[in-house]
Amino acid sequence: MEGVDHLAFERNKAQFDVDAMKIVWAGSSHALEVSDRMSRLVASDPAFRKDNRAMLGRKDLFKNTLRKAAYAMKRIIELRLSEEEASMLRSFVDEPAFIDLHWGMFVPAIKGQGTEEQQKKWLPLALKMQIIGCYAQTELGHGSNVQGLETTITFDPKTDEFVIHSPTLTSSKWWPGGLGKVSTHAIVYGRLITDGQDHGVHGFIVQLRSLDDHLPLPGITVGDIGMKFGNGAYNSMDNGVLRFDHVRIPRDQMLMRVSRVTREGKYVQSNVPRQLVYGTMVYVRQTIVSDASTALSRAVCIATRYSAVRRQFGATDGSLESQVIDYKTQQARLFPLLASAYAFRFVGEWLKWLYTDVMTRLQANDFSTLPEAHACTAGLKSLTTSATSDGIEECRKLCGGHGYLCSSGLPELFAVYVPTCTYEGDNIVLLLQVARHLMKTIARLGSGKKPVGTVAYMGRVEELMESQSDVQKAEDWLNPNAVLGAFEARAARKAVACAQNLSKISNPEGGFLEFSNDLVEAARAHCQLIVVSKFIEKLQQDIPGKGVKQQLEILCSIYALFHLHKHLGDFLSTGCITSKQGSLANDQLRSLYTQVRPNAIPLVDAFNYTDHYLSSVLGRYDGNVYPKLYEEAWNDPLNDSVIPDGFQEYIRPMLKQQLRNARL
Amino acid sequence: MEGVDHLAFERNKAQFDVDAMKIVWAGSSHALEVSDRMSRLVASDPAFRKDNRAMLGRKDLFKNTLRKAAYAMKRIIELRLSEEEASMLRSFVDEPAFIDLHWGMFVPAIKGQGTEEQQKKWLPLALKMQIIGCYAQTELGHGSNVQGLETTITFDPKTDEFVIHSPTLTSSKWWPGGLGKVSTHAIVYGRLITDGQDHGVHGFIVQLRSLDDHLPLPGITVGDIGMKFGNGAYNSMDNGVLRFDHVRIPRDQMLMRVSRVTREGKYVQSNVPRQLVYGTMVYVRQTIVSDASTALSRAVCIATRYSAVRRQFGATDGSLESQVIDYKTQQARLFPLLASAYAFRFVGEWLKWLYTDVMTRLQANDFSTLPEAHACTAGLKSLTTSATSDGIEECRKLCGGHGYLCSSGLPELFAVYVPTCTYEGDNIVLLLQVARHLMKTIARLGSGKKPVGTVAYMGRVEELMESQSDVQKAEDWLNPNAVLGAFEARAARKAVACAQNLSKISNPEGGFLEFSNDLVEAARAHCQLIVVSKFIEKLQQDIPGKGVKQQLEILCSIYALFHLHKHLGDFLSTGCITSKQGSLANDQLRSLYTQVRPNAIPLVDAFNYTDHYLSSVLGRYDGNVYPKLYEEAWNDPLNDSVIPDGFQEYIRPMLKQQLRNARL
Repeated sequence: MEGVDHLAFERNKAQFDVDAMKIVWAGSSHALEVSDRMSRLVASDPAFRKDNRAMLGRKDLFKNTLRKAAYAMKRIIELRLSEEEASMLRSFVDEPAFIDLHWGMFVPAIKGQGTEEQQKKWLPLALKMQIIGCYAQTELGHGSNVQGLETTITFDPKTDEFVIHSPTLTSSKWWPGGLGKVSTHAIVYGRLITDGQDHGVHGFIVQLRSLDDHLPLPGITVGDIGMKFGNGAYNSMDNGVLRFDHVRIPRDQMLMRVSRVTREGKYVQSNVPRQLVYGTMVYVRQTIVSDASTALSRAVCIATRYSAVRRQFGATDGSLESQVIDYKTQQARLFPLLASAYAFRFVGEWLKWLYTDVMTRLQANDFSTLPEAHACTAGLKSLTTSATSDGIEECRKLCGGHGYLCSSGLPELFAVYVPTCTYEGDNIVLLLQVARHLMKTIARLGSGKKPVGTVAYMGRVEELMESQSDVQKAEDWLNPNAVLGAFEARAARKAVACAQNLSKISNPEGGFLEFSNDLVEAARAHCQLIVVSKFIEKLQQDIPGKGVKQQLEILCSIYALFHLHKHLGDFLSTGCITSKQGSLANDQLRSLYTQVRPNAIPLVDAFNYTDHYLSSVLGRYDGNVYPKLYEEAWNDPLNDSVIPDGFQEYIRPMLKQQLRNARL
Repeated sequence: MEGVDHLAFERNKAQFDVDAMKIVWAGSSHALEVSDRMSRLVASDPAFRKDNRAMLGRKDLFKNTLRKAAYAMKRIIELRLSEEEASMLRSFVDEPAFIDLHWGMFVPAIKGQGTEEQQKKWLPLALKMQIIGCYAQTELGHGSNVQGLETTITFDPKTDEFVIHSPTLTSSKWWPGGLGKVSTHAIVYGRLITDGQDHGVHGFIVQLRSLDDHLPLPGITVGDIGMKFGNGAYNSMDNGVLRFDHVRIPRDQMLMRVSRVTREGKYVQSNVPRQLVYGTMVYVRQTIVSDASTALSRAVCIATRYSAVRRQFGATDGSLESQVIDYKTQQARLFPLLASAYAFRFVGEWLKWLYTDVMTRLQANDFSTLPEAHACTAGLKSLTTSATSDGIEECRKLCGGHGYLCSSGLPELFAVYVPTCTYEGDNIVLLLQVARHLMKTIARLGSGKKPVGTVAYMGRVEELMESQSDVQKAEDWLNPNAVLGAFEARAARKAVACAQNLSKISNPEGGFLEFSNDLVEAARAHCQLIVVSKFIEKLQQDIPGKGVKQQLEILCSIYALFHLHKHLGDFLSTGCITSKQGSLANDQLRSLYTQVRPNAIPLVDAFNYTDHYLSSVLGRYDGNVYPKLYEEAWNDPLNDSVIPDGFQEYIRPMLKQQLRNARL
């Protein structure tokens, strides 16, 4: 059956130009071309095989990752790939590794926080990987609260050095990827102390291991922190522990772009604005949002294809059973996730623009949009990563029992994804930051200064507090203005309700803590509004390709109305829509599921993922699931022998009733 | 610091008698005594160590499980444990293994479906484990739809044998635990065919492997289906694949209690009521509900203790940071799960009673309560397992980054638990069964026959359609009648709305499919009502122990009001409460969190779990988390050597810029 496309009958149903949609998804024809070429390069090279990851023990898995990282680098050199191509190739290798931190954190930290001189010294070494670096911030006892870090970095004017020390067990660096076994250097964060004075947390370049024999330098204790969630998954990464016993580094290894310590031990601020740091945060979180759409779309692609292959119930007189994708209960769980994948794609695209905009302004000393940009990227990071984690697990469940097999690809996708909810800002802590921004925005409304960007709608708060949806029939909900109006009113009213509650409490911080759950809900409502509005804005652009825009309009409506139904309590309790209107939204949603159904397979084909990248028997492009699932089973180590290890010692004595005398 | 109780200050806050609560949780003093003794027996025996599970490769893990199973059996024999003690001991070994299926499915199937003669022949062999059995129903292409199984079991009158055959690839048995490597026998389900006639699916006892050399018998292909989700987790189980090539078994190995085939090949029904099968279903699902409370309470225990240990933010002037359990956002996620664990405990207890009641009635040929019992166990299985899966993952996230480490115990707890949502009835399919029962109940309301059991409230549907909650201030929501009234009205109105929609559609089955999502929601509302009402019923009993009942009342209110807030859209859209009342419920909920806070640690202590059973550094009884986390890290295989395997081959050439010529 090799070569037969078992899903051809689904692909023939497409009501839109799939190739045009591929360009929309990729962002541009150029991006599609590069990602297509790089993904095929990786997929066709057996050195990048990854279907055996779940079966490898920790050491073999890790060694294999080192090999792939080196091999990828070798190919990048051999093929003279551009930076864009190289980064794309690495992402299709699809295996967490020390290089992620080297390229994603170490190099950018030097670029962002190092002086020109420091960049000149360290960047060439890092770019050629003559040194390998990681980013050592989080400590055993300190994650979210960076200001609480305990590592001390004390200037010693006698020797012109800094002395790095881990004064407590909880001050041990803990979690940094690439630290445990590989990195030769790290950006280490700790409390800068000069002349007994604590200047708060600063970053330093610290060599950890000898460049000759790779042994840890004197005073440094370093190792791996142990197994993490899932098979394969993040266990290919050497997340590490690191302790310093009065380790000395030269003064010029403090990252001194924003502030520095002089030879005399004086702490001096430079004239570079501190806010630049927030620019980096916007950048990193924008990447996370875009990765969320990638991770979610992979899971959705697998679940959608298998839902079309799998049949259950509904057979009459020997005919085929129904495809499970035809069940409304399957559609109501799957299609909103499909819509979310597209929604996150577009909001990620918009964040990319926002980052450029913010950086341009920063360079012109315009900090006006920064708080808003910071809040909205924090919120979108939180919203999209939580939804993606839950969505991947939902996709796994949508595949029934077989989703539980590693060969479905979904367990590993989930396990490798979930830490995103915690790192770069815990998702709840981030929503509280958004809420703080919303409360500030409301407090300033009277000042005459108009709120900008994603909180601009707050400028119309009086109108929004009064507005009533004018939806009268189900199709009215297809009108973007009807949707926007409802989401704006809901977000505004939730935020105002919080502000009113807070205003009754004399101690503002105490009030913030007391009403923190309501604040989180208000922040979430605000963030959902952003996703909905950016999707709608995208649709106002010119989108070429037969039927492409129509499909996206359907997905946009599904995203919005699904959330309206899910959070109906918000919409009803704030009075912006009536029960009847809520019920009409639900009716419209049902009809949208029917409309998207024939396009479901083509819509996931538009992600353009190779079978290698999906790494899922259930999500195979050709739908040839069962023979491959059967074949895959026999590769398990347990099937190496017919009689399992341990049978003679443990099972035989049981069957032969000789347990009493058995040595076990 | 060994021996110091770092959580003593929390334990001292208890406002209730923890020992008395332990009895309530265990069900009786006797149950507590046995479980306490057995859990300590297992915990104190190094042979049952399980903290290294995540690091073992598949083969070592599996071999280790065989050893533990044999050793447990040996101890059971040596200590002459009662059946109750033995089963308790096995559960505290806490490792999925072939014996689970042997004791949980194979033996019960013979008891339930075998004739007296068959029981006499097979039970002694099974009880002594001279044979080891599993339960082979699910096929590669057929899970939920049992009637769609393809395996054929054809009577051959010439030889007085059945011929078992797997006619297609999708008819391969797939998933049965214990099948892959261990079982000598299986209960095999397939289509019974006599004289060309298909009698549907029946069960048969089939020998799979030789009792001499353990090799598969002729015509049988059998093996393991490969790695499943998570580290350790279900990979200690040999879920298997099985194919038959015209395998012959004697006629008397058909399980013939309900129907049989005569020597002449005639298919004959016995006078034993078929409904007995449903009794078994009620039994199995009752066990699953009770296990849900166990799994959820383990996760909650870990997350609660670590939330009291962990501190983040809020420090002023060098004082300690705040315990994260004091944050309202943490409480709002954690305490409803704590309440759910208790709620599921009590609904499980009630289901145990229901099972006895149903069986007594069945033996008296009273089938009247069966449909209702069947629907409600299906619904509660669905509700509790979905909530528990999500709840375990939420507890993991509540532990911040460290919850992602295997040493937290939470990744494995999640991975080992989630299949519960799929097996023994997919959770969505089960809710549709509940919905069907609700629709039937409504349809029959006019007939004068009063609905019984958990649907009894439907008898008051007219009153419930009109009722308005009379809550006027937040504390009014503490009144059980206020809560019950709102939950009953919501459930009744959701169900009636579905019935009304269905009545407008001429094709009833088509309508059921079209409105299946609304039906699922109605079923869920009904099941939540059951949980709430059984919790309230429990509180109407006499519960001894200082402060015990008061704590349970708080938890009951939290469970109810949390769900009221979460599903506010249901309550508002059906008009049973007003927005103002919904907002009061939320106010009350906030105050309940404050009330439960000082009792949080004692409330999880009441589960009486040993550190061995929890297997979590974060959930340690003594709260001594960080030193142990640090210690644990060094046990990882990657830390066996300072320089990792692969460094010389792959990393050194990278650092030394020799990749071009490296052989990778």
